[in-house]
Amino acid sequence: MRSVNIGICGLGTVGAGVYNVLNRNSKQINSRANCDIVISQVGARRDNPNCDTADTDVSRDIFDVARNPDIDIVVELIGGTDVAFELVMLALENGKHVVTANKALIAMHGMEIFAAAESRGLIVAYEAAVAGGIPIIKALREGLAANRINWLAGIINGTTNFILSEMDSKGREFADVLTEAQEKGYAEADPTFDVEGIDAAHKLVIMASLAFAMPLNLDGIFTDGITKLEPQDVGYARELGYAIKHLGITRQTENGVELRVHPTLVPESCLIAGVNDVSNAVMVNADAVGTTLYYGPGAGSEPTASSVIADIVDVARTMGSAADSWVPALGCNSASLQQQTIMAIEDIDTSFYIRFAALDKPGVLSDITKIMADAGISIEAIIQREQPAGEDYVNVIILTNVTREKLLDAAVENIEQLETVRGNVSFIRVEHLDQ
Amino acid sequence: MRSVNIGICGLGTVGAGVYNVLNRNSKQINSRANCDIVISQVGARRDNPNCDTADTDVSRDIFDVARNPDIDIVVELIGGTDVAFELVMLALENGKHVVTANKALIAMHGMEIFAAAESRGLIVAYEAAVAGGIPIIKALREGLAANRINWLAGIINGTTNFILSEMDSKGREFADVLTEAQEKGYAEADPTFDVEGIDAAHKLVIMASLAFAMPLNLDGIFTDGITKLEPQDVGYARELGYAIKHLGITRQTENGVELRVHPTLVPESCLIAGVNDVSNAVMVNADAVGTTLYYGPGAGSEPTASSVIADIVDVARTMGSAADSWVPALGCNSASLQQQTIMAIEDIDTSFYIRFAALDKPGVLSDITKIMADAGISIEAIIQREQPAGEDYVNVIILTNVTREKLLDAAVENIEQLETVRGNVSFIRVEHLDQ
Repeated sequence: MRSVNIGICGLGTVGAGVYNVLNRNSKQINSRANCDIVISQVGARRDNPNCDTADTDVSRDIFDVARNPDIDIVVELIGGTDVAFELVMLALENGKHVVTANKALIAMHGMEIFAAAESRGLIVAYEAAVAGGIPIIKALREGLAANRINWLAGIINGTTNFILSEMDSKGREFADVLTEAQEKGYAEADPTFDVEGIDAAHKLVIMASLAFAMPLNLDGIFTDGITKLEPQDVGYARELGYAIKHLGITRQTENGVELRVHPTLVPESCLIAGVNDVSNAVMVNADAVGTTLYYGPGAGSEPTASSVIADIVDVARTMGSAADSWVPALGCNSASLQQQTIMAIEDIDTSFYIRFAALDKPGVLSDITKIMADAGISIEAIIQREQPAGEDYVNVIILTNVTREKLLDAAVENIEQLETVRGNVSFIRVEHLDQ
Repeated sequence: MRSVNIGICGLGTVGAGVYNVLNRNSKQINSRANCDIVISQVGARRDNPNCDTADTDVSRDIFDVARNPDIDIVVELIGGTDVAFELVMLALENGKHVVTANKALIAMHGMEIFAAAESRGLIVAYEAAVAGGIPIIKALREGLAANRINWLAGIINGTTNFILSEMDSKGREFADVLTEAQEKGYAEADPTFDVEGIDAAHKLVIMASLAFAMPLNLDGIFTDGITKLEPQDVGYARELGYAIKHLGITRQTENGVELRVHPTLVPESCLIAGVNDVSNAVMVNADAVGTTLYYGPGAGSEPTASSVIADIVDVARTMGSAADSWVPALGCNSASLQQQTIMAIEDIDTSFYIRFAALDKPGVLSDITKIMADAGISIEAIIQREQPAGEDYVNVIILTNVTREKLLDAAVENIEQLETVRGNVSFIRVEHLDQ
């Protein structure tokens, strides 16, 4: 069998996973790739105690790997966007195919990278960039190739899902669970990327491009994190039959494409409501197949390695063929990609959960329901609950039917101006994910 | 762009779906395939009112399609195993690639078909043969290529899942729901293939071959249907925190491969327990990635067409390349396929739910627990429930820990011989699907 030489850049958590799994399962992997996959070189600033590279040529300069004339595929696992971009472009200039797990890199520089690869007749593969070990890129690019995709919604950040699962099952506060997640290694010391939804936004943009044949573009995406979520909302949601999940959602509408990351109430009967802890899941709704769901570990050493190696196998098996037999980087040929309007969040139609404190006396609910009716918003459920402190104010929780967000914004403003209402109205979007 | 000509044989539910989706989404599909996919001919004994073939060459003889010199890919959607086998072999003899949705054909004649294709440098693709619209074959062959698969368990027959969901949610009897399923078109007039697990067995054998690199072989598979399931067991299972699902399970053990289709208790906390109605789902546990799950519609016109067309796109895009760049039919090169011992059901280790009627008097439970203890079986839970009729006998329900089935068989025989026990002991296997 012919040999294909790969160079692994980065020997952190994922790099070590790729190195170890490739060695452990080499017989099966080579049989699936129809060739011998050989780790010719590793580029890493330092060794990883989880990974015995004694028999491998290790360079302390990752750029050595991109220049190494023996290497066919450069595997970029260093993370970040500056050096990683430089490395990937250098690898392409030197005629190497590229496999990467780097969502930020693809979301931000994907178009430039894919163009460089296409012009040189090279492949850039990035299955591990979205949802860790779940083969969701392959499902979107190939498995669902017959379909027009209507929408997709995913739990695509394990850290936030772990935090929400703990808040839900144990009634804990956000800050408290975050500290535990950091101690367990599920969250970074600076958790902003995860808890503010930036990481999810990167992944969502990649999936939206694949779903709707758009160039990769982070502009216009709406991102809201989970830092302001309160345990009481998680509890009230459960009372109403919903779980709160941090979802990335993208949908094709007549007015453009919705592209948004935010906490979302989803019905308990929906399969994705049962996806807990650090797991990820992506629901895809498409015209021919209907709704499918893909579930698995969204991060971790060997789960991510599983996706990286799947890409290596695909590239190794097909790299000798003509470029037009390869799966195009964004699923369709690059000439077909077309930018669409990304809708402003206030123009999006969805249902809402809203909560506020109101005086517990006659006439208050009537004021509120009148405001909603005047705004043309119908109410699906309304409940009142005593506040924990047992004050004169009660919590009012309303579930609306589908409405335009700008109408809800106006109604919220009017509710906040009522003398019988104290403080702000908080709201969370609701998705039924059923059509 | 180059053109690829396909011929569709069979214009039933799936054939019409393929024809319609290919026409409706042709722009997207061609862009993904990097070529123009043209329906050159349809072979069908009769027209389908759901499908307007006025602009297409339709032959009443499907074999015309397999002989048509213009056609590159024959799409076999006639079902059955005799004529379909003849058709596929004739298509291969005439140098055509083949796409099929036919699980029985692949499970029974796959090795002969794949060998004929390989010797002629042709592709046979069969994504739609397992789990309808879910791209599970692609996940197993490509997405999880890095992994050694430990086990997989799937709800792979929509009819039985619909019946079980109705029995569960509404406490209905099997026969009653079956009649409704037949009226709704979810079940055939002769439902044997579905409710006895034969259809699921075909699909399981295909997935087991992919998972464990074994030749396709139906010998040795254990198959039990759902016809004897009683609503009371569904109810008791719920009391204990379990749902009853009809699963196809295959597992690699030190003693060989488990290959079995039967009703199974699964914990409610397990995602697959929430898969209801005609939906399908497959859980796969593998060494690198851990557990992933794939969910979607297991049958139906356009869901199945989605998978058929995904195969057509793959074949059309890659058919001009060298055969060693193709994904091998069973995931690894055919020389690596190796038969393994298929374990007899009595040698399998699992947990059990058992139920029987016992006299409601002191000492009875002590006799039973002694039998279990003597057999080396530990008990996880034991509950007694009055029988509906309010007799002297009560229902005793026991959940065991993991034990070898032959030990359970012996214990069951001893329990049945107790004078205080009436009638037979019924049992259902329990799987926790957590490792």
